[in-house]
Amino acid sequence: MATGAIDEASNMKVILKHYVSGSPQETDMHLTAGTIKLKASAGSNAVVVKNLFLSCDPYMIFKMMKLERHYSDPYTPGSPITGYGVAKVLDSAHPDFKKDDLVWGLTGWEEYSLITETNHMFKIRHTDVPLSFYAGILGMPGMTAYIGFYELCSPQKGEYVFVSAACGAVGQLVGQFAKLQGCYVVGSAGSNEKVDLLKNKFGFDEAFNYKEEPDFTATLKRLFPEGIDIYFDNVGGKMLDAVLLNLRVRARIAVCGMISQYNLEQPEGVHNLTSIVMKQARMQGYLVFEYYHLYPKYLEMILPKIREEKVVYVEDIADGLENAPAALVGLFSGRNIGKQVVAVNCL
Amino acid sequence: MATGAIDEASNMKVILKHYVSGSPQETDMHLTAGTIKLKASAGSNAVVVKNLFLSCDPYMIFKMMKLERHYSDPYTPGSPITGYGVAKVLDSAHPDFKKDDLVWGLTGWEEYSLITETNHMFKIRHTDVPLSFYAGILGMPGMTAYIGFYELCSPQKGEYVFVSAACGAVGQLVGQFAKLQGCYVVGSAGSNEKVDLLKNKFGFDEAFNYKEEPDFTATLKRLFPEGIDIYFDNVGGKMLDAVLLNLRVRARIAVCGMISQYNLEQPEGVHNLTSIVMKQARMQGYLVFEYYHLYPKYLEMILPKIREEKVVYVEDIADGLENAPAALVGLFSGRNIGKQVVAVNCL
Repeated sequence: MATGAIDEASNMKVILKHYVSGSPQETDMHLTAGTIKLKASAGSNAVVVKNLFLSCDPYMIFKMMKLERHYSDPYTPGSPITGYGVAKVLDSAHPDFKKDDLVWGLTGWEEYSLITETNHMFKIRHTDVPLSFYAGILGMPGMTAYIGFYELCSPQKGEYVFVSAACGAVGQLVGQFAKLQGCYVVGSAGSNEKVDLLKNKFGFDEAFNYKEEPDFTATLKRLFPEGIDIYFDNVGGKMLDAVLLNLRVRARIAVCGMISQYNLEQPEGVHNLTSIVMKQARMQGYLVFEYYHLYPKYLEMILPKIREEKVVYVEDIADGLENAPAALVGLFSGRNIGKQVVAVNCL
Repeated sequence: MATGAIDEASNMKVILKHYVSGSPQETDMHLTAGTIKLKASAGSNAVVVKNLFLSCDPYMIFKMMKLERHYSDPYTPGSPITGYGVAKVLDSAHPDFKKDDLVWGLTGWEEYSLITETNHMFKIRHTDVPLSFYAGILGMPGMTAYIGFYELCSPQKGEYVFVSAACGAVGQLVGQFAKLQGCYVVGSAGSNEKVDLLKNKFGFDEAFNYKEEPDFTATLKRLFPEGIDIYFDNVGGKMLDAVLLNLRVRARIAVCGMISQYNLEQPEGVHNLTSIVMKQARMQGYLVFEYYHLYPKYLEMILPKIREEKVVYVEDIADGLENAPAALVGLFSGRNIGKQVVAVNCL
């Protein structure tokens, strides 16, 4: 490339049309064609990347709403959605990244992105595992499972663990971590197909389809006659309320998300918090990016387990940026089976 | 006393008539006269005490109900109520206690008690402070404030602290501890008289009468424009819900009790738990008796502060066992001002 030459490419983008108030619909987004200069300005610390995989994550619903009190800014209507992704560096003005590096981190829902905020961008050094894993087990969702389970819940062998949304990007890992730790683990999910995966692929001791259980408190009492030591909460609401009635003494609840509440105008009431006192329980919310300094430690633990197939990971990969809006919307109705990813391009 | 002689004394008792379902009433208890042998059987490890002060504590409502899932057994209808108290040893078959020792711990609501469970009984070694303090600031409620605030909330200078039921046995101490720690502290209470005490006696920076505030969320926003770092929760319910909307990042909530919920058939729903995730907050329930090994450390801290009047303690002392049922019932309507104690006898 001659000095000063700037390649320009056409760039398909997924645009948020307007803020949403309840569940997002495909029609809240649209695809539009634009162009992008495939060059990072010298001294800018920016990188230009070609996006390979985009991650659909529950927190994104908050950025589609105009909320007062959220930990991150909402999307800008008329601009592309952003999220975690796996990408290849095309040009870099940042000393830590160079052309052809593979990276994962925050990027745009488009074919190519100019990334100016590289704080949460990690170089991918191990490519003997599927690249899409860096949008899941080897990326933010993997760290979320690892931190919530190991760091916040301090699991002990023989403890009783319950995971909701157990077939999702995070839950399937928590269940497998619990088994590695010698715990008894039960998962809930929203279809019989998912329940089957939990029991037969991820090795959960028990699993149930919450849509077929009229009384969560009774279900949990049946599956946990001794009570629950650790609850990895992905959903909040009624399930949390039932868990509170089934806690063991000194129980720990890691609150990773409350997806059942995100698209409700008025969140469900949780009535059984007095159990927190009775059972001397702890409930801890967390945001995984505060723990990214532990990523190397996590990689060291998880990579051998992937290679030895001691941990498996199920992905639901939508093909092509044009299918990204449907993939994202499907996350909030539980349509995906496993980690929802969008494959943008081929390498 | 000749060998083998056994003194028998008449013994007035407060009896629970039957289990209650909502707020207890005076008529749920009655006084009855009995007798007691003032002698502990050799080898029994028991002690016989004369009760001096009895403590009225919120947890006692649970023992008046027949609950399935509580940390301690319910009272037995027809038998005396039990609770914390200050007493003088009349006879002892326990190596750690001897005649004339002053003690605090679990005892009966009666003039004299035969105590067979001495695990939670502490010898009183400092009598230059009011003896009734061992039912409050120097007993279980004092430890509750100390553990919840210092051990569970790790307060930092300059942090923003909110205490509900702030004029009670525990709350008044938490507020003063917060000031000693260099925090900004606000308390809520149920009367203007209590609000006045909070501001002018206990040194809270601000205080409000929750009965005069139609919108707790707005009240807290006004009093905590920067948000709340530490919430010492004595009440649960609606106030907790409002606090959740006013948390700062990495907030800590010590859940000591949820008195507003104890006498409701259906506890109020808490709708804003998603804040636990957003704010990476921690909510920790605890039972103080799990921390009694730290009592000597607490005494070392608090005794000098009492002597130097750097910490004050307001008690509401009902006179005579015959007034004990009314004193206990009054706790659940907030009638008491300060720590509710019953003086049984004079020394």
